[in-house]
Amino acid sequence: MSGIAQTPQPPYYAVIFTSERTEGDRGYAEMADEMVRLASIQPGFLGVESAREGLGITVSYWESLEAIQKWKQNERHLIAQKKGKSEWYLTYKTRICKVERDYEFDSASTRNEGR
Amino acid sequence: MSGIAQTPQPPYYAVIFTSERTEGDRGYAEMADEMVRLASIQPGFLGVESAREGLGITVSYWESLEAIQKWKQNERHLIAQKKGKSEWYLTYKTRICKVERDYEFDSASTRNEGR
Repeated sequence: MSGIAQTPQPPYYAVIFTSERTEGDRGYAEMADEMVRLASIQPGFLGVESAREGLGITVSYWESLEAIQKWKQNERHLIAQKKGKSEWYLTYKTRICKVERDYEFDSASTRNEGR
Repeated sequence: MSGIAQTPQPPYYAVIFTSERTEGDRGYAEMADEMVRLASIQPGFLGVESAREGLGITVSYWESLEAIQKWKQNERHLIAQKKGKSEWYLTYKTRICKVERDYEFDSASTRNEGR
């Protein structure tokens, strides 16, 4: 899960989840790990990228809106969403996006812009 | 620039920029600050969210693809992009997205899902 997600050629979908945490762990780290593991085995999952520096940003990538909707309704994920509101987050925003274009740079290779 | 970006109702556009840095600052922090200031005054700029934790994720929000394209061609930004490849980034990926839907939660208010 660390590093830049290896996603296929667009179009595909992204869920940008931006959040501010409450103080203390309160079981958050364990559930966050479980959610990444669980998301990774869902149909249509393409990858995830995550960083927190005060503000937390997690972007997950999916083949379709249907795959995103199914993951949102996953039983364990529903419990995590509920605890997210009662325990872990002061505030968050979720944005559902269609990735229309992408390009990349890798200093270790000769390819550097594209598509 | 800190905190969750206050974006208007969708549709709007997002640029997800995910990166891994080289070692050392090499003038990066100063240029990154300048780029945020400069982006913020571009036509069509809606907001930016950023976090780095090993992996860096910066998401900027824009009114249109044209606004994104213009910012990409900004003279100072072109210099920053060039130094990004020669100095600051081991690897990065840029994804251009259309935000189709969003919803939010704020523990301090009564609104919590929507749109």
